[in-house]
Amino acid sequence: MNRVLLTAAVTAAALSLSAAAVADEGMWTFEGFPSARVREAYDVDINKAWLDRVQAAAVRIPGCSASVVSKAGLILTNNHCVTGCLVALSGDGADHLKDGFLTATREEERACPGMYGEILVSVTDVTDRIKAATGGKTGKDYGAARAEAMAAAEGEACKGVAGSRCQTVSLYRGGRFAVYRYRRYTDVRMVFAPEFAAAFFGGDPDNFNFPRYDMDSAFLRLYDGGKPVATPAFLRWNPTAPKAGEVTFVAGNPGSTERLLTVAQLETARDLTLLITQLQRAELRGRYIEYGRRGPDAKRVMADAIFGMENSFKVGYGRQLALNNPAFMAAKRQEETALRAAVAARPDLAAEIGDPWAELAEVQVAYARNYLPYRQLEASAGAGSRLFDLARTLVRAAEERARPTGERLPEFADSRLPIVERQTTRAAKFEPELEQLRLEFWLLKTREYLATDRAALDLVLGKEGPEGLAERLVSGTKLADPAVRKALWDGGLEAIKASDDPLIQYVLRIDAAARAARLTWETEVTAPTDRAAEKVARARFAVYGESVYPDATFTLRLSYGQVAGWSWRGQQTAPFTTFGGLYDRATGVEPYALAPRWIAAQGRLNPETVFDFTTTNDIIGGNSGSPVLNAKGEVIGAAFDGNIHSIAGAYGYDPTTNRTVVVSTAAITEALIKVYGRDALVKELLGK
Amino acid sequence: MNRVLLTAAVTAAALSLSAAAVADEGMWTFEGFPSARVREAYDVDINKAWLDRVQAAAVRIPGCSASVVSKAGLILTNNHCVTGCLVALSGDGADHLKDGFLTATREEERACPGMYGEILVSVTDVTDRIKAATGGKTGKDYGAARAEAMAAAEGEACKGVAGSRCQTVSLYRGGRFAVYRYRRYTDVRMVFAPEFAAAFFGGDPDNFNFPRYDMDSAFLRLYDGGKPVATPAFLRWNPTAPKAGEVTFVAGNPGSTERLLTVAQLETARDLTLLITQLQRAELRGRYIEYGRRGPDAKRVMADAIFGMENSFKVGYGRQLALNNPAFMAAKRQEETALRAAVAARPDLAAEIGDPWAELAEVQVAYARNYLPYRQLEASAGAGSRLFDLARTLVRAAEERARPTGERLPEFADSRLPIVERQTTRAAKFEPELEQLRLEFWLLKTREYLATDRAALDLVLGKEGPEGLAERLVSGTKLADPAVRKALWDGGLEAIKASDDPLIQYVLRIDAAARAARLTWETEVTAPTDRAAEKVARARFAVYGESVYPDATFTLRLSYGQVAGWSWRGQQTAPFTTFGGLYDRATGVEPYALAPRWIAAQGRLNPETVFDFTTTNDIIGGNSGSPVLNAKGEVIGAAFDGNIHSIAGAYGYDPTTNRTVVVSTAAITEALIKVYGRDALVKELLGK
Repeated sequence: MNRVLLTAAVTAAALSLSAAAVADEGMWTFEGFPSARVREAYDVDINKAWLDRVQAAAVRIPGCSASVVSKAGLILTNNHCVTGCLVALSGDGADHLKDGFLTATREEERACPGMYGEILVSVTDVTDRIKAATGGKTGKDYGAARAEAMAAAEGEACKGVAGSRCQTVSLYRGGRFAVYRYRRYTDVRMVFAPEFAAAFFGGDPDNFNFPRYDMDSAFLRLYDGGKPVATPAFLRWNPTAPKAGEVTFVAGNPGSTERLLTVAQLETARDLTLLITQLQRAELRGRYIEYGRRGPDAKRVMADAIFGMENSFKVGYGRQLALNNPAFMAAKRQEETALRAAVAARPDLAAEIGDPWAELAEVQVAYARNYLPYRQLEASAGAGSRLFDLARTLVRAAEERARPTGERLPEFADSRLPIVERQTTRAAKFEPELEQLRLEFWLLKTREYLATDRAALDLVLGKEGPEGLAERLVSGTKLADPAVRKALWDGGLEAIKASDDPLIQYVLRIDAAARAARLTWETEVTAPTDRAAEKVARARFAVYGESVYPDATFTLRLSYGQVAGWSWRGQQTAPFTTFGGLYDRATGVEPYALAPRWIAAQGRLNPETVFDFTTTNDIIGGNSGSPVLNAKGEVIGAAFDGNIHSIAGAYGYDPTTNRTVVVSTAAITEALIKVYGRDALVKELLGK
Repeated sequence: MNRVLLTAAVTAAALSLSAAAVADEGMWTFEGFPSARVREAYDVDINKAWLDRVQAAAVRIPGCSASVVSKAGLILTNNHCVTGCLVALSGDGADHLKDGFLTATREEERACPGMYGEILVSVTDVTDRIKAATGGKTGKDYGAARAEAMAAAEGEACKGVAGSRCQTVSLYRGGRFAVYRYRRYTDVRMVFAPEFAAAFFGGDPDNFNFPRYDMDSAFLRLYDGGKPVATPAFLRWNPTAPKAGEVTFVAGNPGSTERLLTVAQLETARDLTLLITQLQRAELRGRYIEYGRRGPDAKRVMADAIFGMENSFKVGYGRQLALNNPAFMAAKRQEETALRAAVAARPDLAAEIGDPWAELAEVQVAYARNYLPYRQLEASAGAGSRLFDLARTLVRAAEERARPTGERLPEFADSRLPIVERQTTRAAKFEPELEQLRLEFWLLKTREYLATDRAALDLVLGKEGPEGLAERLVSGTKLADPAVRKALWDGGLEAIKASDDPLIQYVLRIDAAARAARLTWETEVTAPTDRAAEKVARARFAVYGESVYPDATFTLRLSYGQVAGWSWRGQQTAPFTTFGGLYDRATGVEPYALAPRWIAAQGRLNPETVFDFTTTNDIIGGNSGSPVLNAKGEVIGAAFDGNIHSIAGAYGYDPTTNRTVVVSTAAITEALIKVYGRDALVKELLGK
């Protein structure tokens, strides 16, 4: 699945794989969309009216994308973008995640807690203003001045506009700043969702693969004042499947890409970061799965952990496929050579930029030296144990709050404290078995990967073994109780130091070393990387300007492409699947078991109907739920995944293999009628 | 641990990382030992008498190396080389693996079942003879003629020499052939072995790492006619630890190296073969460990599997460290460039050799295309399930025996059949839980990695899920019963086809596809690889001749080096550990728990005594147990491991990091007296 799980991970602004974007490459801003290029490639006219209408119907929801598809505020997105809502609406014997959510009338539509929909209204360039405010400033002063200028620009843009939200976005890694103003809707209701078995048919084995037979779609509706919203624009629903080669557009919010990384950085990702991360993920996955075999309770406890781990592992595997593909690395190398030559050809620019590529190559030495201790002691400490995370937050918050806000770790600045406190002290459910397994796994891997670092191991393990230590900490801690955490938060450093909670005591024992590893990392790796990367970005912007698109920032972008399969290692993959293929693929055993409604409907469905299809559009996590449009701007599907090679899009777009996976409106329409009997919904979609 | 588990894996003869071997590089034959180079580097004279004496005292035992260290046939090797014997001698409440094996008198020495010791007596060059026999022949004729000529040469060499064994060895990938004649002893008795906790202190975390505190030594004795053997030579025991920088020699039997691989082949190993293998190993390791947590029975069932998997994983990790080290790959690239230039500079040679490097690069395309199906359907099918292996052997043997021997899969040739029948029909113990876990894991990974290969998955899984299918096969099969296997073997193809054993039926269903994957692999990958690799080998031999050493072939070699630590990622590792360090490292928790005798002896041991040390000697799996010698040819330790970088030695020797790990005679001597009270043994060692 292609959802952005952590939009906070959006950090680096970056550019394209090649200087002039290759065919179908690019996550373009609407104002920078290369209409001329598209006209040349596909003979279609994407004019301002087209763009304005699509922008006005494109919706951003938490972690995902969506679109308005009726005049009554009906929204199309993916089922996997609304699972949280489906769980929240379940209970009293109803399991909407498993069984789906069906409404016959609008009265049955139910509000999704915490859900919102944002429609981009305007983009205002504030580059000059931000640059003026920060000119001549460095370090902390620079950051403070920039934050102040951004806040002022946002305040002005949103002033007096009810229901609006404004956000300053840094594009081209600070080459451009713009205030994005959204119309924000907070009453968003569930209209329709299929069964999990229909939405995620094929489960992990088929995740990020194709052929695919997934009804990964759902409908929400925007409400305002208790009534459905008639938005200024909506996308026309076209229930006819496209043909191979037909031009397609995807409007949505790609979350994050790292296309700016130099070859030296990519090699480190391949040789070290991803390598270690994937080996550890694989082993932990094995432990989760085997633990889940103990019985029904264990299976329930592990289900979410396995799901999340398998998705992460698959994403990591896709990245490994890219970085371990000699052709892909050769293309990156070529692109880097071209940019360096272009810089060298302009003496002024060369003098200004220097040699950030050499600087980054040099940083990799410090990276390799520090990565394992930084990873094991700090970045991945606890291996996902939430109790450990809470203990560490409590300890650090107490220590940091004793200092002035400007001198704290940034996550404990005054502006962040209320959120941190809420997250740290609220009630939550813990699975002790999972907590212990994760903590033990972390301790085992720390012992394994820091095997010869006696000082670190003496601190982390002392005379205890990983198994015994994890058991002691998890069985002894009282931090599962929110009242205990609240008391520790309120009591501050004194209470923390006086606490006899074994997990608090443990964190107190190791935290100085963890902080030291972090400081070393930030000093020797992060800071010089940022400094050099900014120079590379400046070089690219100077050489290519806005003829290239900015890196993904979880803001509205438009990509173009066409319906197409691909070839990999000699195997051809066709771009379409059909309803008939679904029944052919079904085995009756999870994850290839059909939902009962689909079994019942087999005789009524046209086996030739296009179910899912693939396109060359350049998308990435965050694009889930994006409308897929034809040349007329009609919606013909919802993007719900990429193939395994699309994951490489994090580093660069490869036109030969990178594919978007779409559930067709043809399939959705026919299923709504013949599987689910939602004729009213279809009528609305077809504007009848 | 550094033992050769599978000497049959010795296939490719290869040369050194650099044209002129770098400092301390090389697994040299005794007749090709570079004494001049050693004199220059270390100012010591390794003359023929020295070499003859060491050769006459060097012993090959199954999978390992050893040496005679007394005039009464006493043999020094590693504890981990005799674990099979210790298990075999256990019973009736005695657990010699755990508690060690101590004798006070020779009467207590007990024969190790299946153990042998081989001392190399002579090496006779038969290159001309083999080449004459095979001249002008190709394909099967070539192989048959070569085998016949080898057998004849071996027969002549051993004719009339009682207790001898002769073996033709292909050196320099067929550039040289030699008959090795050994004196073979088959009555080998256990004299002394320490406790597992003393031999393998630090367990998997410290395996292939240093600092190390392991008493990984054991003593055997050669017997003949019921009496200890006085071999023609033995190595003098020197109980004094060496100093840093002191020259060291290792005489032993390195098993297999792949130093001939081209850069294209190494990249495939890095990007595909090792990557996939390690990810699968990591996950299976996680499953083994977690299964073992179910209780004492589960722990016992999984213990061996975990031990083997962790050792394999660590070896794979060491290989990944090498191939993912940009400096290492750059050195390999440079070496390849130099050889190609040398070939190009000699037109005759260039015409003869062609461009095998380009051919091998081309083969990598077919490799990548076929690797996953070949791996999942054939090479790693069953993921280690022995019942699956037996079923497949029974099915294939029945099919193959119906054909003339020359047309069979080679493992079923008439000459191999008796061994195959014995292995397939003998009684053995199976752990159904482990069998099912492995089979299920294999099915899960096949579904995952061949996810889009519908034809393969329809065959392998049909409409079943991995979990249910594995359960059905393992619970239903009767193949654990040797009588059932014998009946199927004797009944031939008819009995196989009539069998209602689910595992037999299952193999019958999938085996045509598995054989097809193998045939494709052998045709498109193995055969063109061998053809091209032979040309690369010929090029190397033509350019460098015998100024370089042949690839490891599990035959006697001598390496030189010095006592030295190393530096990696900014961390310095000193070359010595002491008894004091052991007690400092001990935690009381496995794998850092001391054996009771060692706890009791702490006050008697000198904390300054050198326990283990590292040297720059170039060794690899098979060298375990090798004597480590000083300039005088006195034994100062037993090699028992390499550091993590020594694993890279499979591909090439890196003098900056590749280290041999040795248990010192100083430590063994002192422990024999003060921990074990084996004064008589020490007297024998010291020749008193």
